[in-house]
Amino acid sequence: MRVAVIGIGKMGAGIARNLCKAGHQVAVWNRSRGKAEALAQDGARVASSIEDAVHDVELALTMVADDAALEAALAGGLLKGLPAGAIHVSSSTISVALSARLAGEHASRGQAYVAAPVFGRPDAAAAGKLIVLAAGPAEAIDRAQPVFDAIAHRTFRAGDQPQQANVAKLCGNYLIVSTVQSLGETVALARSSGLDETAFLGLLTETLFSGPVHKIYGTAIVEKRFRPAGFGLGLALKDIGLVLDAADGAKVPMPVASVLHDAALSALHRSPADSDLAALAELAAQNAGLPD
Amino acid sequence: MRVAVIGIGKMGAGIARNLCKAGHQVAVWNRSRGKAEALAQDGARVASSIEDAVHDVELALTMVADDAALEAALAGGLLKGLPAGAIHVSSSTISVALSARLAGEHASRGQAYVAAPVFGRPDAAAAGKLIVLAAGPAEAIDRAQPVFDAIAHRTFRAGDQPQQANVAKLCGNYLIVSTVQSLGETVALARSSGLDETAFLGLLTETLFSGPVHKIYGTAIVEKRFRPAGFGLGLALKDIGLVLDAADGAKVPMPVASVLHDAALSALHRSPADSDLAALAELAAQNAGLPD
Amino acid sequence: MRVAVIGIGKMGAGIARNLCKAGHQVAVWNRSRGKAEALAQDGARVASSIEDAVHDVELALTMVADDAALEAALAGGLLKGLPAGAIHVSSSTISVALSARLAGEHASRGQAYVAAPVFGRPDAAAAGKLIVLAAGPAEAIDRAQPVFDAIAHRTFRAGDQPQQANVAKLCGNYLIVSTVQSLGETVALARSSGLDETAFLGLLTETLFSGPVHKIYGTAIVEKRFRPAGFGLGLALKDIGLVLDAADGAKVPMPVASVLHDAALSALHRSPADSDLAALAELAAQNAGLPD
Amino acid sequence: MRVAVIGIGKMGAGIARNLCKAGHQVAVWNRSRGKAEALAQDGARVASSIEDAVHDVELALTMVADDAALEAALAGGLLKGLPAGAIHVSSSTISVALSARLAGEHASRGQAYVAAPVFGRPDAAAAGKLIVLAAGPAEAIDRAQPVFDAIAHRTFRAGDQPQQANVAKLCGNYLIVSTVQSLGETVALARSSGLDETAFLGLLTETLFSGPVHKIYGTAIVEKRFRPAGFGLGLALKDIGLVLDAADGAKVPMPVASVLHDAALSALHRSPADSDLAALAELAAQNAGLPD
Repeated sequence: MRVAVIGIGKMGAGIARNLCKAGHQVAVWNRSRGKAEALAQDGARVASSIEDAVHDVELALTMVADDAALEAALAGGLLKGLPAGAIHVSSSTISVALSARLAGEHASRGQAYVAAPVFGRPDAAAAGKLIVLAAGPAEAIDRAQPVFDAIAHRTFRAGDQPQQANVAKLCGNYLIVSTVQSLGETVALARSSGLDETAFLGLLTETLFSGPVHKIYGTAIVEKRFRPAGFGLGLALKDIGLVLDAADGAKVPMPVASVLHDAALSALHRSPADSDLAALAELAAQNAGLPD
Repeated sequence: MRVAVIGIGKMGAGIARNLCKAGHQVAVWNRSRGKAEALAQDGARVASSIEDAVHDVELALTMVADDAALEAALAGGLLKGLPAGAIHVSSSTISVALSARLAGEHASRGQAYVAAPVFGRPDAAAAGKLIVLAAGPAEAIDRAQPVFDAIAHRTFRAGDQPQQANVAKLCGNYLIVSTVQSLGETVALARSSGLDETAFLGLLTETLFSGPVHKIYGTAIVEKRFRPAGFGLGLALKDIGLVLDAADGAKVPMPVASVLHDAALSALHRSPADSDLAALAELAAQNAGLPD
Repeated sequence: MRVAVIGIGKMGAGIARNLCKAGHQVAVWNRSRGKAEALAQDGARVASSIEDAVHDVELALTMVADDAALEAALAGGLLKGLPAGAIHVSSSTISVALSARLAGEHASRGQAYVAAPVFGRPDAAAAGKLIVLAAGPAEAIDRAQPVFDAIAHRTFRAGDQPQQANVAKLCGNYLIVSTVQSLGETVALARSSGLDETAFLGLLTETLFSGPVHKIYGTAIVEKRFRPAGFGLGLALKDIGLVLDAADGAKVPMPVASVLHDAALSALHRSPADSDLAALAELAAQNAGLPD
Repeated sequence: MRVAVIGIGKMGAGIARNLCKAGHQVAVWNRSRGKAEALAQDGARVASSIEDAVHDVELALTMVADDAALEAALAGGLLKGLPAGAIHVSSSTISVALSARLAGEHASRGQAYVAAPVFGRPDAAAAGKLIVLAAGPAEAIDRAQPVFDAIAHRTFRAGDQPQQANVAKLCGNYLIVSTVQSLGETVALARSSGLDETAFLGLLTETLFSGPVHKIYGTAIVEKRFRPAGFGLGLALKDIGLVLDAADGAKVPMPVASVLHDAALSALHRSPADSDLAALAELAAQNAGLPD
């Protein structure tokens, strides 16, 4: 399939590379061209503009930082350049409101739109083992499936309306952040009480909470690995902000999400740059008067 | 081994029955005698008083509702009647402060003391598949091991000081309550946004959060099974209160635990009697204006 | 002075009437024309459109519900029709972001812009006893002063940049909502403990908290006057949302504001329509299991 | 009247001095004798023990740090030594539970008991301008009135049951702490937005919030006077803990009080010793990334 990947950060690079490996014809574009050029050796064509990247594709996948970056890409050639009939697969974690709006804008140009945010950190992107959460018209998702198969080991379908995938993605991220905060409070109490933290975490993750989120973040917290960022604190704050925006739109109070927002904001001011989401636990420990 | 079980509620009954099955000589006592008598057919001796239950045992296991009930049992014969050299295994979810105090009181009488709270709902107790979290002198835990083996499929050792097992148990319960609250907020948002909740929960529990707590409570929340109680809302509130007491003693702020406390208290006033901890999600949905 | 008042709700009507009384030539416009017509007997001219209202004025004062209503008025004739050199006085409680943007838009058309939100309920507007909080170029505020003198008994100047008045107004509203919530929690505890609430409130408002907010809302709470709305619950929620938006823009965590947001949202779902902000105390009492 | 004052800290010293000035015969006792001896020059008798202080009094007023200190005084001679018919006036800020218990203990010895906590900082105690909040049998309060008149300019009666005064006092302190936290969040946002803080505070305290608490703490916050303590951060945390205990006993959720507890605990770990309650605003500013 002729595919463009717009946004070649840590995530986009892995995605583009796996699309090349799977035999697709891949054009790549990035705001700072250097990152895109590294993919030439994988067989990707480095486009000179977004319009150049998308002018003849069947599918354009965007993986950019936030709403602003996606709006810039749309205005900077994506809306105008994407052929009628082609699909825009939006994999960035963006606001529910923007995603809902995009459905209309693409439809008015005869373009298809699928929201397909992903779960997984850069290593999962590199390994082609992301989890894709797709929503939109079933026919368009079907056509995009070969792309999802190249980058992910699971594709879940969240509904007919693209923004439902964005809600689901944001809810998932909220549960991750909530887990990190609760683990952080727990480990602060355990440490203050002289518990063997490693044994305690083992108990939790071998029994009640045996999923990967508790294991990955629990280990990082117990080992005090707060930097460099896998899932950066700033991104986590952005996502909690999007959750609260979506909740506000739906008139749903989310008191724990509110606590997470305030904690993440404090942590961002107090933690070194490039801190991981796990630094919420560092803040919890410092607020408890524990030594670093 | 000659064993007494003090407190024959849903949990204690399963424990006593499995001890009988494993060939131990079991005396049982309960404040309201009827519940204890049901165990006679399993081979347990129904004691006429706490002193009668414990006077010749090697180990007395207590499984009662709260601090007050345990203090009543201690004053009502346990402290006086337990032979020197015998072990008091305290499996109730009690305060860290009481557990710390008991270590001293038993020691002064030449009795051993092991805190061994358990994870697992009544069905796990009935099946002998609890998880035991033991702390105290290693020698005493070793002697109690055959009892743990009869009631549990895992025994974790939390440390040398009995109250460390209580801290660990409370932290585990805090994480359970926190998970339920976060799932409740999430499902309220998902429902308001028209997501297929069952598919969404499947995504979460097949990938990021594949442990049993998310599965059990997530399913209950999506299916709106809020009653009858497995882990009752009132007990959950009690446990969060104990977590906050322990945190206060250790000078550890736990902002999410504070939110849970306030939510559980509101839910207790608003929910029918015999509501499960899962009713936190019912409160979240009602606060979001969703129909029952 | 030739003045237009755009938005003739409870607040705008009092403002327009006092401007007529003070001898200004007043044109009025309202989306639903009926409310505007009631002012003809006070000497106001009922304009047929926004452009008609503002085409020859020296000052146009807007007092509308929210950002959306103000943007509609701007697009619906205000921006285009306001003469160069005339002043737009924006008295609505709007977002900091919109106010900052308006400064630029008016400047590019040679119009002046002053943000001048007010404190005071409709009875204060009717009595010409509002408090005006003005920010913007000093020269423009000076020119607007006769208008402020007709509607208010105090004018405070918050700074050179219009949006500083909006921040100050939102902060004031936040403190009001925070006071109501804290009083609500307090009265719930006092009532549960059998205190004489009226005596208790008297103690507070005669000593520590003798300002008008504690007196007005404290009395409403103790007397359970939750409806009809003076300062409506929905507006309070809107304002707390604007506070949180402003705080987010400035990267300031406001944990109490977050609690207020979630409480107001829950109260909105649970309270009858037309409930006052004081209904936060009704929610607090219900969450405490107290009878209505 | 023959009076004993037990507990000669900053508050107790002012109280004892004003009782001497008013012509009462005053015996004083303090755990560290030095502080008591300073009152000899005011005419007080420095007692050698609590029993010595109270053996012939009509009224013994206690003003100590907390529940533990009061229980120590009771066990250390006050209960045994206070003559039958004499009154114990408890002016410390203690728990509702202890106050309720004391009513019974004193009654069983034929002693009267009045809870009479006070509002006012040490300068108000020195000036005899405290506010007394008394509860208990009306007859006993009547007899104690001359003592209250010597130390306070207002006496409020909260009810027949002594602990009602303690609830009222704790509620008052909760509202003070809540005010400081809200002001702290507000000033952080105002400062980030470039408002003139002094003008902004003036606006608030001349209009909406003209009572003394907003003025005193608002000024301290704007001027960054966080040390030394008038009302110490540690005492504020203790009081919020007592509020939450009382609320728990009454099953009243107090979500803002929970936030205050967690903020005060964090501030205590992060602020220098001898910080005032106003340091909650210092924490808010630091959490917002503002320079000290």
